[in-house]
Amino acid sequence: MASEESEITPMNESQEEGKKLSKKEAAKLERQRRRQEAAAVAAISAVSVVEEGPDPLSGNYGDVVLKDLQSKAVSGRKWTEVGSLSPEMREQVVLIRGRVQTIRPVGKKIAFVVVRERGFTVQCVLTVKHELVSAQMVKFATSLSKESILDVEGVVTVPEKPITGATQQQVEIQISKLYCVNKAVPTLPINIEDASRSEVEIEQALEKGEQLVRVNQDTRLNYRILDIRTPANQGIFRIQCQVENIFRQFLLSEGFIGIHTPKLIGGSSEGGSAVFKLDYKGQPACLAQSPQLHKQMAICGDFGRVFEIGPVFRAEDSFTHRHLCEFTGLDVEMEIKEHYSEVMDIVDRLFVAMFDSLNEKCKKELDAIGRQYPFEPLKYLRKTLRLTFQEGVQMLKEAGIEVDPFGDLNTESERKLGQLVAEKYGTEFYILHKYPLAVRPFYTMPCYDNPAYSNSFDVFIRGEEIISGAQRVHVPEFLAKRAEECGIVVKTISTYIDSFRYGAPPHGGFGVGLERAVMLFCALNNIRKTSLFPRDPQRIAP
Amino acid sequence: MASEESEITPMNESQEEGKKLSKKEAAKLERQRRRQEAAAVAAISAVSVVEEGPDPLSGNYGDVVLKDLQSKAVSGRKWTEVGSLSPEMREQVVLIRGRVQTIRPVGKKIAFVVVRERGFTVQCVLTVKHELVSAQMVKFATSLSKESILDVEGVVTVPEKPITGATQQQVEIQISKLYCVNKAVPTLPINIEDASRSEVEIEQALEKGEQLVRVNQDTRLNYRILDIRTPANQGIFRIQCQVENIFRQFLLSEGFIGIHTPKLIGGSSEGGSAVFKLDYKGQPACLAQSPQLHKQMAICGDFGRVFEIGPVFRAEDSFTHRHLCEFTGLDVEMEIKEHYSEVMDIVDRLFVAMFDSLNEKCKKELDAIGRQYPFEPLKYLRKTLRLTFQEGVQMLKEAGIEVDPFGDLNTESERKLGQLVAEKYGTEFYILHKYPLAVRPFYTMPCYDNPAYSNSFDVFIRGEEIISGAQRVHVPEFLAKRAEECGIVVKTISTYIDSFRYGAPPHGGFGVGLERAVMLFCALNNIRKTSLFPRDPQRIAP
Repeated sequence: MASEESEITPMNESQEEGKKLSKKEAAKLERQRRRQEAAAVAAISAVSVVEEGPDPLSGNYGDVVLKDLQSKAVSGRKWTEVGSLSPEMREQVVLIRGRVQTIRPVGKKIAFVVVRERGFTVQCVLTVKHELVSAQMVKFATSLSKESILDVEGVVTVPEKPITGATQQQVEIQISKLYCVNKAVPTLPINIEDASRSEVEIEQALEKGEQLVRVNQDTRLNYRILDIRTPANQGIFRIQCQVENIFRQFLLSEGFIGIHTPKLIGGSSEGGSAVFKLDYKGQPACLAQSPQLHKQMAICGDFGRVFEIGPVFRAEDSFTHRHLCEFTGLDVEMEIKEHYSEVMDIVDRLFVAMFDSLNEKCKKELDAIGRQYPFEPLKYLRKTLRLTFQEGVQMLKEAGIEVDPFGDLNTESERKLGQLVAEKYGTEFYILHKYPLAVRPFYTMPCYDNPAYSNSFDVFIRGEEIISGAQRVHVPEFLAKRAEECGIVVKTISTYIDSFRYGAPPHGGFGVGLERAVMLFCALNNIRKTSLFPRDPQRIAP
Repeated sequence: MASEESEITPMNESQEEGKKLSKKEAAKLERQRRRQEAAAVAAISAVSVVEEGPDPLSGNYGDVVLKDLQSKAVSGRKWTEVGSLSPEMREQVVLIRGRVQTIRPVGKKIAFVVVRERGFTVQCVLTVKHELVSAQMVKFATSLSKESILDVEGVVTVPEKPITGATQQQVEIQISKLYCVNKAVPTLPINIEDASRSEVEIEQALEKGEQLVRVNQDTRLNYRILDIRTPANQGIFRIQCQVENIFRQFLLSEGFIGIHTPKLIGGSSEGGSAVFKLDYKGQPACLAQSPQLHKQMAICGDFGRVFEIGPVFRAEDSFTHRHLCEFTGLDVEMEIKEHYSEVMDIVDRLFVAMFDSLNEKCKKELDAIGRQYPFEPLKYLRKTLRLTFQEGVQMLKEAGIEVDPFGDLNTESERKLGQLVAEKYGTEFYILHKYPLAVRPFYTMPCYDNPAYSNSFDVFIRGEEIISGAQRVHVPEFLAKRAEECGIVVKTISTYIDSFRYGAPPHGGFGVGLERAVMLFCALNNIRKTSLFPRDPQRIAP
């Protein structure tokens, strides 16, 4: 840990500017910079700087040189995860790796360092002791920049009172060795404490006349790699992973097979909304707006029941809280024997299983999200409520809201209907089916007894649409007719229509947006919170 | 099943040409067409056509009209899967839905219909019987076009001798009702029997002077939805789904979290190979060639260990058997404590678990693939062999092949080394590590003791590269230096480099191509066989 022979000296900012510095000069600059920082920290904490001098304990702390991080050797040492520390480990020597969350010096002989690893934090204590911890070591610790990566070795102790400033409240670590593995810049664009703060905290402080930092959405997204370190965000993306996993496992257990269909499509995909166009080796091409056509082809290809998890691309200029230009689609397509209710049955059982599993297995994550963004658990029934579109229109009418019985519901009516349904049926998750044919895509199967309606459905969570599904037209001649009626040039979708000429089973399916599912389950107010690196009409970075 | 009131008459080909025909005319044309087909079938099978006339049993067979397929009702009938039929069901009446694979009339009173569902086939027998099956019903059956979708109701019987022409050899169905749910066109561009044939069969037949149809790769891909109905292809894509599933489940059990990173990237991603460019709302953008940058950002964002399964895009003009312009990447990135061997440990255990699981759980699928494309099971060790690049070069040298010790291996040397390794160590799966730095991307960490080499590895199956991985440079100043040395304009990757300024743990990872993994595990000769709808420089359809 103390090798000075590194072939590659970590460089400072001036080197990055392109100036070539000798090793010696660089080391000098580095020492200078560190001294300045230490002085600054010391000044803030009102601890006078200890005179520098050779420290016989210098091997117990310091910066790890790059060379020692280049896979030099396997030492056999074991690291303990911060999240797994427990009072049973009392008196054990442990080694942890994590980030500096906070440093608090007390006088010049004690410092408290809160170390964070994947959302879990532990308080580590540094106390000057003969032949173990020097005053210089305490000074080194207080000079560390927040978010730097540390290796901490020490003995686990159990404090008399629970620690309030860390998630690990029953244990502390008495530091014996402290190495900085990687340094963060001294001034961060976002402080994790600020980014972790709830609106409630900010407002309560304001009542006391205290102004706390509120990190706005754009700043968060600009520095997303800092933002995603907050406990709420760690929770959100673990929930997202779990949603996807339950989706997969449920469908696999029901005889579905996972497929991957191309995102690069010749020509332009299903008419209507805007697509991203590109040049494909001299041919016009676009990015798939959904795997609709190909997942249906997979059904015609005898896979029986398929699902796909993958990106979908929408070039629409939507600046709402729930639209993105790129999101993760969860798509399903399946043969149906008689009725599109077979598809709704899958939706029903899949999502009830998903909500159950999230509530049961992701308590920690949901709590972490709730601390920053408080929300009520989703209300849902064991057997999902199904209303027809007409019934929905009637409910709205009775509440004094007139909507076109052959048009679509706007966002406001959807929200209102969600309220009415919640009041009447006690659920915030329900299916609305038999939509007017005119508001659905051309490939939607019309109702058998009334061609003004269709064998289609939308699913709502907390008054917002989350799933769209339907029985599809599987007869090529009728499909061509429907396309024409919807103003689509049949020639442009001939590959699609031809897929049904070689024997096509009746089938249906649905699509869900992963980010939207997580957003609505957790009652978050913006889909950008549930996309790791969101893309909207104004954002294509980072 | 006999409704004549359908509002939407299925249209025939001449209607599709744009001519408007009355229902009556259409029906007449349809009758004409059917009569012609029936005559043709009858001629081939040397059965004389039975005179037409009213049939009192006409309710037991016929074409299902579209209206009855528009979710008219839920009848409560249960369909039995062809694959689940067994002798225990003897004497039971079952209802199955599947495709016409073959029809063989015997005289005018008997017909054998082989029905296929998801790769499984069963022989169904139609025998003229008083008050149950009429001669007209047999005639209707023999008029059905191959690949049409049928509903067959009948009694399960157990034949004296096993049936050789179907996968269900122990049972037959004595047909009592037969409805055509959806018609395939009379002449298919590919016959499934032809597409299912092995090279061995074709050559053996040729020796006997018989010329069997060989369906070439391009024809298969042009009519992919027919091609993927073959047993081998059904097996390939079920294996692919399983590979992905094992990948996920193994990593989840090891504390990894699944993420989704954007495919739309501002500017152009990591230098070097060609990218697909597009216009993103007036800004230059491209499609991600790999999730490299974003998965590393996720590590800097405290997720600790991440994986991603998603499309990657390469605009390279590669016309080889193993390159595609779009494929599914299996990507992994993880914090490392000391050594890149921690990453290789994951590769080792993950792939051994995967091969074990495929061999154990996918026997049927592997057999189905092997019948058309015979292959030897992959030889692999319980603990994966690791050789250094230098050791590999030495082995080649001893075999009389000189390669540049600081260059890359070409495809031929890789193949040769694979042979040498298989002979010496008895494995077709091994890791080659410590590659020359010059042949790896700029973000690869150089070796601690020799900057001419790097902390990187490739993994080979049957002599072909399947995985590439490495420890990454996590120090921003050094990363900028390496980029510059590799001729990359540092400014263009500043977002990437800046990600490491806020505290970055040492980390590494690897990437696998899903299609390539399946191809090489099954020793297939072309990656187009393992991509559902492949994209290469000349193909962007279907």
